[in-house]
Amino acid sequence: MQKKLDSLKTRLAEIDDLNHAAAILGWDQQTYMPPGGAEARAQQLATLSHISHEKFIDNAIGDILNELQEYAEGLPEDSDDASLIRVTKRDYDKARRVPSALISEIAQAGAQAFEAWKEAKDGFNFTIFAPFLKRNLELKKRYAECLGYTGRIYDPLLDQFEPGMTTAQVETIFANIRQELVPLVHAITSKSTVVDNSFLHQEFDEQKQWDICVKAARLIGYVFERGRLDRSPHPFTTSFSIDDVRITTRFLRDYFSAAFFATLHEAGHALYNQGISRKLEHTPLADGASLGVHESQSRMWENLVGRSRAFWKFFMPHVKDIFPEEFHNIHAENMYRAVNRVQPSFIRVEADEVTYNLHIMIRFELENDLLEDRISIHDLPNAWNIKMQEYLGITPPDDARGVLQDVHWSSGSFGYFPTYSLGNIFAAQLFDQVKRDLPDIETSFEKGAFQKLLDWLRQNLHAHGRKFTLDELARRITGEPLQTRSFITYLKNKFGEIYGL
Amino acid sequence: MQKKLDSLKTRLAEIDDLNHAAAILGWDQQTYMPPGGAEARAQQLATLSHISHEKFIDNAIGDILNELQEYAEGLPEDSDDASLIRVTKRDYDKARRVPSALISEIAQAGAQAFEAWKEAKDGFNFTIFAPFLKRNLELKKRYAECLGYTGRIYDPLLDQFEPGMTTAQVETIFANIRQELVPLVHAITSKSTVVDNSFLHQEFDEQKQWDICVKAARLIGYVFERGRLDRSPHPFTTSFSIDDVRITTRFLRDYFSAAFFATLHEAGHALYNQGISRKLEHTPLADGASLGVHESQSRMWENLVGRSRAFWKFFMPHVKDIFPEEFHNIHAENMYRAVNRVQPSFIRVEADEVTYNLHIMIRFELENDLLEDRISIHDLPNAWNIKMQEYLGITPPDDARGVLQDVHWSSGSFGYFPTYSLGNIFAAQLFDQVKRDLPDIETSFEKGAFQKLLDWLRQNLHAHGRKFTLDELARRITGEPLQTRSFITYLKNKFGEIYGL
Repeated sequence: MQKKLDSLKTRLAEIDDLNHAAAILGWDQQTYMPPGGAEARAQQLATLSHISHEKFIDNAIGDILNELQEYAEGLPEDSDDASLIRVTKRDYDKARRVPSALISEIAQAGAQAFEAWKEAKDGFNFTIFAPFLKRNLELKKRYAECLGYTGRIYDPLLDQFEPGMTTAQVETIFANIRQELVPLVHAITSKSTVVDNSFLHQEFDEQKQWDICVKAARLIGYVFERGRLDRSPHPFTTSFSIDDVRITTRFLRDYFSAAFFATLHEAGHALYNQGISRKLEHTPLADGASLGVHESQSRMWENLVGRSRAFWKFFMPHVKDIFPEEFHNIHAENMYRAVNRVQPSFIRVEADEVTYNLHIMIRFELENDLLEDRISIHDLPNAWNIKMQEYLGITPPDDARGVLQDVHWSSGSFGYFPTYSLGNIFAAQLFDQVKRDLPDIETSFEKGAFQKLLDWLRQNLHAHGRKFTLDELARRITGEPLQTRSFITYLKNKFGEIYGL
Repeated sequence: MQKKLDSLKTRLAEIDDLNHAAAILGWDQQTYMPPGGAEARAQQLATLSHISHEKFIDNAIGDILNELQEYAEGLPEDSDDASLIRVTKRDYDKARRVPSALISEIAQAGAQAFEAWKEAKDGFNFTIFAPFLKRNLELKKRYAECLGYTGRIYDPLLDQFEPGMTTAQVETIFANIRQELVPLVHAITSKSTVVDNSFLHQEFDEQKQWDICVKAARLIGYVFERGRLDRSPHPFTTSFSIDDVRITTRFLRDYFSAAFFATLHEAGHALYNQGISRKLEHTPLADGASLGVHESQSRMWENLVGRSRAFWKFFMPHVKDIFPEEFHNIHAENMYRAVNRVQPSFIRVEADEVTYNLHIMIRFELENDLLEDRISIHDLPNAWNIKMQEYLGITPPDDARGVLQDVHWSSGSFGYFPTYSLGNIFAAQLFDQVKRDLPDIETSFEKGAFQKLLDWLRQNLHAHGRKFTLDELARRITGEPLQTRSFITYLKNKFGEIYGL
């Protein structure tokens, strides 16, 4: 049996190398590749992903997995080997259900739709994108049919990004938070209290911004000897091994928060990958559990830490060392309030903690409306604007700041958006547990000590890699399933205090 | 038949993608990879090269090649398709002869020997390296036996880097130039003429050096939109497609020539790859013909152009714009003489044009002595020093500046060194032809116009990729086989004038 397990691991390690090679090509594509490299790079990536896919859906892997089934059942369910067999079987069954031809068709349609989306967005013209979006939607419906489902067609799409989560569960969660958030946003915007964040909008030297980003990332525990920071138009985190987890950020010369919080966010993702147990290295378990769980880590460091009063009590003097003129007379408390300013706005990625999830709900609801034929592609821009008015009280002046703002649908990534909110919600739930386990944690932030939090996360969450689902992790770590109570309480307390509600 | 050819091309394109993916991983490894990434990277590279090798030695490729043999014989020998079939058959037959196990063993022994070599060099202690070198030598003897040979054991090793070239041919070539060079070096060193190059040894701001390197590379025709320049400890050129050919350089703060000529050298290599015909893209023909031919291009731009009087007549004002203080009162003629100073020295990579090839001959002769058991590993340092005294009139003070200076033997790359000299020799032969075809070429250099030379090289050499061998190219382009006359005349004229011989 050990021999069979070893043979499985050897095959998976080869696939792991191919996938990481593809990740390296992707990183280069977004950071350093010259324009001329684009065409060949697309082919190289397609070849790597094709070979990796072919090797993974090999009958031999299915046979070994079947032969190992009984062995796995005799092991503790949370053992590394049982988890490897269970998760690989889950991936394998999904991968086998979708024909390679459909995967290629989706990739090709996505590449074309991406170009159309850019053109449509630049030209404020949704109709350019509409036929491509329609095609993506049709292909993803076929994809969902291949994967199969018993309840909603959205289920298998969501499951690709958030294994085990159902559409109905997300609807319940979103209903819970919507009924609290819409009134909260209303309460904040009706108050005369104005939070001044004008000092974040000045000219900030890029090299100095870089230095602060590096300092902050290092401070929270990101190890540069096992990663690196680069620039890219859209910040991202990517991992080539547990010991090579890279992040990127982007700089706006006239807005301090852009690079700073993008760096904390990506460093949060990276801490997760840098913290996976070495025993899982070179297996499919050496990654984050899901997009939602991954987002819980980026959001924890970006918001629960980086936008906390305690953090700024410690960090403000360091920022002032580097930008003494720019932040003259600005104190930690000013900074804390400024980086937490609530303001309904059109663009999701610029949204504050309170309004952010309303942006997500709009997308989630529209995706379901499209997939279940309640609205047509033609209706989409108008449906978007109506929901924006309903949830956020504002209407986008054009589709570039409305329905066209996100890249996701251009690649047919339906089912992806909810994971952002699941991450926010799970982060708050985890942090409540942290405070129960380490009551003085916020005092340690004031002293610039973040290792305790990182150690806690490493032990309870990071080390497990992909062994467990979001729900399994929630139960193991906090003793209850994913709940919205922590998140709502967090928002009400924090923003109630800032805005004097 | 077209269908068979297409099927061959599809298989080769996939292998091409894998090899380029490996090249991207290698580039990253030497430029940006954090230290933590090293271990996983070695595995990823091993996996890619293993899969590429397995796919290439597939019986199906051999069968298709056999089936295409007759078709190829009906085509003009220099057609793209006939060349593809011929060169692929040559590669295939070689690849099939060496067992995968031996290739892995060589790679593994090389990785260990590399570490031992670094330690030995740092500690000035050859005995640390000796047993590893012995193992590399034994493995490469076995490798040569697998490939087979009728004449010398060195032949199949040389053939890996310089297809079609024999050891006997190299010996004749080297005998020709040695009998001219040794007296030439002696004549120069016995003259009282001293060339002042002290102004090259000052403190030069690195950013300004960078700017000059970029300017020079662009000037000779390197297209940055289809490549990029980065820093690495050892400068190199690597290609991921015809439209993504990257170079690196390294900066010494206190020596102007280091980064400048390394950049010209690597840009010369890159111009070759950027100039390959697009019709060959995505096939094994889309690369340089051999290491020797590749080196002819780097040396042409580094030496025949970059160390020419005409080049400095044009370029000196640009250098003075950037370093006005450093090069105050230094004129084009001073620079021309300084960058051509002849001085026997211990280190090959720092050698001038006259002494450089003597360094190569020493290595070539010692490699043959080792492979044919005329000397033992134990004798090697002494044999090295004796030859240094004989050819260059100096004896290394230690093995770090002697037998341990080059990395090549640590990876078992016996047969590589001669290609450096073949490149120098071929460059001069080509340049004589350029002057016959374009008599005013050096006048155009004085005006900063290098496009004519580049166009000539593109048309006559670059476009063909790997279609022809060095010898075939020499005959096609210059009407005669590789000859040493041009190179010797070039050196005698140039350095005779500088040193007033």
